[in-house]
Amino acid sequence: MEPHSLILAAAGAGTASNGAGAGHDPHAERVALLVALFVMFAAAKVFAEIFERLRQPAVVGEILAGVLIGPAVLNWVSPSLATETLAEVGVILLMFSVGLETEPRAIFSVGKTAMGVAVLGIVLPFVLGAGATLLLAGPLQLQAPLVPAIFIGVAMVATSVGITARVLADMNLLSHQSARIILAAAVIDDILALLVLSAVSGLATDGVNWVKIGATAALAVGFVALIVTAGTRAMKIAAPKIGRLRQRDPLFAFALALCLGLALLAEIIGIAAIIGAFLAGMTLADRSHEEELMHKSEALVQLFLPFFLVGIGMQLKLDVFRNPWVVVLALVLTVLAVLGKLWGGMLAARGLGRRAALQIGMGMVPRGEVGIVVAQLGFQLRVLNESLFGSALFMAIATTLIAPPFLRRLFAGESSAPTNAPDAACVEEDPIDIQ
Amino acid sequence: MEPHSLILAAAGAGTASNGAGAGHDPHAERVALLVALFVMFAAAKVFAEIFERLRQPAVVGEILAGVLIGPAVLNWVSPSLATETLAEVGVILLMFSVGLETEPRAIFSVGKTAMGVAVLGIVLPFVLGAGATLLLAGPLQLQAPLVPAIFIGVAMVATSVGITARVLADMNLLSHQSARIILAAAVIDDILALLVLSAVSGLATDGVNWVKIGATAALAVGFVALIVTAGTRAMKIAAPKIGRLRQRDPLFAFALALCLGLALLAEIIGIAAIIGAFLAGMTLADRSHEEELMHKSEALVQLFLPFFLVGIGMQLKLDVFRNPWVVVLALVLTVLAVLGKLWGGMLAARGLGRRAALQIGMGMVPRGEVGIVVAQLGFQLRVLNESLFGSALFMAIATTLIAPPFLRRLFAGESSAPTNAPDAACVEEDPIDIQ
Repeated sequence: MEPHSLILAAAGAGTASNGAGAGHDPHAERVALLVALFVMFAAAKVFAEIFERLRQPAVVGEILAGVLIGPAVLNWVSPSLATETLAEVGVILLMFSVGLETEPRAIFSVGKTAMGVAVLGIVLPFVLGAGATLLLAGPLQLQAPLVPAIFIGVAMVATSVGITARVLADMNLLSHQSARIILAAAVIDDILALLVLSAVSGLATDGVNWVKIGATAALAVGFVALIVTAGTRAMKIAAPKIGRLRQRDPLFAFALALCLGLALLAEIIGIAAIIGAFLAGMTLADRSHEEELMHKSEALVQLFLPFFLVGIGMQLKLDVFRNPWVVVLALVLTVLAVLGKLWGGMLAARGLGRRAALQIGMGMVPRGEVGIVVAQLGFQLRVLNESLFGSALFMAIATTLIAPPFLRRLFAGESSAPTNAPDAACVEEDPIDIQ
Repeated sequence: MEPHSLILAAAGAGTASNGAGAGHDPHAERVALLVALFVMFAAAKVFAEIFERLRQPAVVGEILAGVLIGPAVLNWVSPSLATETLAEVGVILLMFSVGLETEPRAIFSVGKTAMGVAVLGIVLPFVLGAGATLLLAGPLQLQAPLVPAIFIGVAMVATSVGITARVLADMNLLSHQSARIILAAAVIDDILALLVLSAVSGLATDGVNWVKIGATAALAVGFVALIVTAGTRAMKIAAPKIGRLRQRDPLFAFALALCLGLALLAEIIGIAAIIGAFLAGMTLADRSHEEELMHKSEALVQLFLPFFLVGIGMQLKLDVFRNPWVVVLALVLTVLAVLGKLWGGMLAARGLGRRAALQIGMGMVPRGEVGIVVAQLGFQLRVLNESLFGSALFMAIATTLIAPPFLRRLFAGESSAPTNAPDAACVEEDPIDIQ
C-alpha cells in the first residue's frame, strides 16, 4: 500500500490523542520515513560532492555523512527497520551491478590466488584480533576473556566487498586484474567466514556441530559453483527468449527477479544475500544486452547506495570511549584489522609484484556492515560487553573509511581496461605475469 | 547498515533459543524481507506478462498478483513496515517520473476544467457513498450510522492518480489532453480531499477547527502554486550549474533529492507525498537533460512500482463477506464509486465531447491506496466496524481494478503525441476545441 497521506496528515493532529490504533501514528511514521529518505540521500550527495572536490573517495564522504546525521553527532536520523530495508536493497543492487561487469572467466582465471588471499586474510586478522583482546583483558577488566576474544577475532574476519567494489567502479577499474582477485577472494572469504562463525557460535552456545558445518560448507560451495557454471550457460540460452516477452523491458525485469531470487537463496543457504546478487549479475555479464542492463542498474544504485553507505556511518557509537582503555582497544583493533588483511594479501599475492599485492590486500581491508553485524550478534548474545561492542563497531567503520583513499592512491594511473573485455584486461600496465 | 548475513545465518540456528535480543531474530527478518522482495516482484512480473498477453492492462495483473500472494489467498507475504516502505518509494518514484513528462504549461491550460472535474468528483461520490451506507444501516445493524456513513463517503472521495498515470504512460499518452486534465484534477482533488478529511476527522473527534482548516488550505494551495511557478523558473537557472558539479551524474542526484525533499514537504503540509514528487518532476520537465532523467527514473519505477501495485492487492480482506449484506454494501459502494467519478467527469468536461469526458471521468475512478488509508483510519478510530472497513477496502481495490481496462478501451486509437511536446499535444485526433 502506498500510504497516501492527505488523510492521515489531516486527521493526525486532531486524533493523535484518542487514536484507537496499536499505539503507532501512521502519519508520524510516514513523515519519519520521508525524513530518513531525504536527509540520508541529500547528506550523502552533499558529502560526496565535498569529497570529490577534496580529491577523496565519495564513499568516504557518504559514510561520514552517516556519522554526522546519525546518533553519534546530530541524531537527525537513527537506524530503523525502514533505513535497514533501504540499505539492504542498496547493497544488493550495488553487488548486482558489480556482477554485471564481472565475467565468470575473469574470476576463474584468478581462482588460486584469490583462495590464498581469502584464507590468509581470515586467519591473520582472527589471530591478531583475538590476541590483542586477550592482552588487553586486564586493563579492560574482562572476566573470562576467551570467548569474547574469539568473537572479536571473528568480527575482524570478513571483508565488506561492496566498499572496495564501489571505489574501483568509480575509477572504472572493475576489470583490472587486482579487482578480479579481490572480488573472487571476497566470495570465498564470505563462505569461509560463514563456516568460522558457525563453529564459533556453537562454541559460545551449545557445542560445535561439525556435521552441520560440513553440510553448510558443501551447500555454499555447491550453490556458488552451480550458478557460476550452469547458470551462465542457462542464461545464454534463455536470454533471447526472455527478450521476446510482451511486458515492458522484459530482460531488465528478468534480471532483477534473478537478482532478488538468488539473493534470497544465498541468504537461506547461509551466505550473504549480496553474494547471490553478485552471482546473478555475473551470469548476465556477457549477454549482448548487458550494456543496457548496466545503464539501468546504475540508476538504481545511484538512488539506493547512499542508504547503505550512510547507514554504515549511522551505526557509530561514541559513548563507550570515555574509558581510555576502550579507545586503546579500538585503535589497536583497527590497526591490526588493516595489517592483517594487508599482510594476508601481500603473502598470498606476492607473485604478482609488490604493487598488485598491496592493492589486493588493501582491497580486503573494509569490514563495513559485516563487522557491524558480527559485533551486534556478540552483543545480543551477551558475549561482548558495551566496551568490546563499541570497539568492534569502531574498527568496522574505521577500516571502511581508511581503505578507500589508499585504494585510490594504489590504483592511481592504472589502465582502466575496457569493461568486460577480459582479454584486454589481461594486458596490465605493469608487466606482471598472470598467475 | 547492510545486514550482511553470513554471520547471522550461521549463528541463527545455534543461538535462536538463547538470543538475548529484544525477541527478534535478525536473520529471520532478513529472510522475510528477501522473500517479500522476490515474491512480490516476481509475482508482479509474471502477472504483468499474463495480462499483456490477454491484452489487459499490466497494472491490473500486478494488483491481482498481490491479492493472490497476500493474506486473502495464499498468504505468502503479508503487509509489513518493509513492504510499505518499498511501496511508498515505488509510488513516489512513479509520480516523479509522471511529473517529468508533464510540462507546467500543459497543466495550466486545462486548469478550469480540471477544477470542475475535481470538485464534482468529490461531491458526487461523497454524497452517494454516505447515502448508500445510511440506507443499508438497517440490515447491517449499525447503531448511530451517521459518522460511519460520512467516513465511507470520504473513503469514496480521493483518486489514486498513480494507477491511471501508469496506464496512460504505458500507452504513451501522458501528454494527451485528457491525461493532462486528469493529472491536474488529481492535484486539486488531493487538496480538496485533505480539507474534507480535516473537517470530518474533527467531526469524529473533538470538533471541527475551521481556522486550522483554512490555514491548511492556504498552505497547501500556496505550496503547489509556489513550486509550479517559482520552482520551474528556479530550475531553469539552477540546472546548468548543477550539471557542472563533480560527483557522478549530478543532475540525476539533484533531481532525486528534489523529489524526496518536496515529497517530505508535501507530507508535512498535509497533502500527499506523491503530489510533492509529481511537482518535483514537473519543475524538471522542460530541462534539456530531461530525456536522460526520464530514462533513469524509468529504471527506478520498473523495480519499485510492483511493490506499490502488489501492495494494494495484498490489503484485500475476504473474511467479512460471510455476511451477505456486507457483500451488497461492497458491491453498491463500488458501483457508486465508479458512477460518482464518471458522472462528475462527464458533467465537468462535457464541453470536450462525450469521449473525452468519459476518458476523464474513468481516469478519476481508481481509489487505490487513498481509499485504503481512509478506511484504515476510520477502523483505527473505531468509527468503522469490520464490515464497513472490509467494504471500503473492497471498493478501493475493485475501482482500481475496474478502471484500467475501460481506460485502455476509451483511449484506444488516440494519437500518442510526442512526449513533452505540448504544442503537438494540442492537436488531438478528435476535433475538439481546447477549453
